[in-house]
Amino acid sequence: MSIKIALLGFGTVGKGTYRALELNKEEIAKRTGVEIEIAKILEKNQTAIESGPAPKDSFTQNYDDILEDKEIQIVIEMMGGLEPATSFMEKALNKGKHVVTPNKAAVAKNYEKLHRAASKNNVSIRYEASVGGAIPVIATINDSLVANKITKIEGIVNGTTNYILTKMEEEGQSYEEALLGAQRNGFAEADPTADVEGIDAANKICILMAEAFGVVKDPETIEREGITNITKDDIEKAKKSGQTIKLLASAFIDSPGNVKASVKPTLIDKSSMLANVKNEFNAILLSCSMANDIFLYGKGAGMDPTGSAVAADIIAIAKDIE
Amino acid sequence: MSIKIALLGFGTVGKGTYRALELNKEEIAKRTGVEIEIAKILEKNQTAIESGPAPKDSFTQNYDDILEDKEIQIVIEMMGGLEPATSFMEKALNKGKHVVTPNKAAVAKNYEKLHRAASKNNVSIRYEASVGGAIPVIATINDSLVANKITKIEGIVNGTTNYILTKMEEEGQSYEEALLGAQRNGFAEADPTADVEGIDAANKICILMAEAFGVVKDPETIEREGITNITKDDIEKAKKSGQTIKLLASAFIDSPGNVKASVKPTLIDKSSMLANVKNEFNAILLSCSMANDIFLYGKGAGMDPTGSAVAADIIAIAKDIE
Repeated sequence: MSIKIALLGFGTVGKGTYRALELNKEEIAKRTGVEIEIAKILEKNQTAIESGPAPKDSFTQNYDDILEDKEIQIVIEMMGGLEPATSFMEKALNKGKHVVTPNKAAVAKNYEKLHRAASKNNVSIRYEASVGGAIPVIATINDSLVANKITKIEGIVNGTTNYILTKMEEEGQSYEEALLGAQRNGFAEADPTADVEGIDAANKICILMAEAFGVVKDPETIEREGITNITKDDIEKAKKSGQTIKLLASAFIDSPGNVKASVKPTLIDKSSMLANVKNEFNAILLSCSMANDIFLYGKGAGMDPTGSAVAADIIAIAKDIE
Repeated sequence: MSIKIALLGFGTVGKGTYRALELNKEEIAKRTGVEIEIAKILEKNQTAIESGPAPKDSFTQNYDDILEDKEIQIVIEMMGGLEPATSFMEKALNKGKHVVTPNKAAVAKNYEKLHRAASKNNVSIRYEASVGGAIPVIATINDSLVANKITKIEGIVNGTTNYILTKMEEEGQSYEEALLGAQRNGFAEADPTADVEGIDAANKICILMAEAFGVVKDPETIEREGITNITKDDIEKAKKSGQTIKLLASAFIDSPGNVKASVKPTLIDKSSMLANVKNEFNAILLSCSMANDIFLYGKGAGMDPTGSAVAADIIAIAKDIE
């Protein structure tokens, strides 16, 4: 079967996903029988449009062109940020189109609203790429662990801060030096606030706990502490006691119906699987009633890992449509 | 929806799965809308039948009772071994029933035959529990990484041998001492041949490479070496060079269409994620074109992890039937 999709946004992530879907078109078709056709792309920025690789006539500046196109069954939101991303996703859902997005901020903040719209219109919203990049954490919670009661989630879900902490630990750098290095190597943005203050991780733990526990919290209400105050001295002390400092996002069922969630620098025993997650990698440890501990590890961000997860979501939807 | 299933075999694994499905019935129904009803159980052994927990009138000694029962849509094969397990699965598929099994020996040996029968009858055969217990490795390959070309698989897929090697390394035990300890703790069988000679791991790597590369090999043709000749001295030497010895099952694309697979004791750098997989735990590292490295870790065997994976397969089928 052939399925028409539209991309909203053609920045780095949009372009990466476009490339991922185009380059792997045959492999995807061979393995799944689904041929993905990128029918339209919403983008205003001329530089983004002209620098390729999408054909110029696939671009539109008018979202209605996509909303009113009945052949487009899936909308991939790649704009990032809360608005207009959230409204655009809602509109697509209300038009009976499925939505796929890596946008953790929008999904975390508007979890119930988006799911309500999806359910009302009998379509799906999927966002595997929003947490842990290509790591199949949402699929694992919802499908593979579906018979389990999940009791605890612990994750290193922000690559920037993990990269900084690794450099501080392994190369004795100060926080400032490590941040600068992360920025130079493309692992931190010019304004690193959302990462280093734990805002990004708070969004992600909110998504994970909504999936695993069915408990939806506003990410702004999560107990949160970033890594900006971590000193070389803290790192040295941890090392000496056989531990390491990680920015840990965690959530667990405190009492029935009551979930405790936080994002904060945490001492982790060196023997723990989480302690061995280094540099920009991410990992999530799920404690489960039957499966015991399940630990998932991989690249938490980047064009290709994001493309990998977005493509998986598209194909899951396509198989459901079939 | 309610779905009727039958269990073949009510030994340890069958009983564990029964308990897992019964105990988690409500949780499963709540999360998926699927109510699993265990309608019939094939078992001859009176002790197994009488020691509970299934109601006596659900047992039959005649497989035809299950095959001819049109209400039973899924058959869960829990007998183990090659025969009659394989013929029974084929019969179920040919009767248009879906099959779920944790039986790695039967699936590895009869991969094509079973898949042909499933495909001919437009039903599924699923076996997530056959590799890595509750670790979602088959789902990850087939669903989450569907847009990727997987280029290499490396796994610690046998808990018994990993337990033995861990005890040798951490407690300085000899192979014989560690094996005895594993048997006492229920991590090794009285006849440990299939585990310690790498036969079990060979079955599992064959299943993984069939899923990931589409290349089917007879497990008996896999290059294979067990752990029976590993000495304390080997372990000490590895330690001194910052390495550890693991029974590694691996497969990679050597040249287009040509896959190299082996099971053998392998020196692994201490900094590798695989080096930190200890005791009875399992892990699989997948190298992928887009997702980069994905590492999955968890309990590779046991009643509950097996039940967790079997239940996930049942529910995936139930959702497809819907």
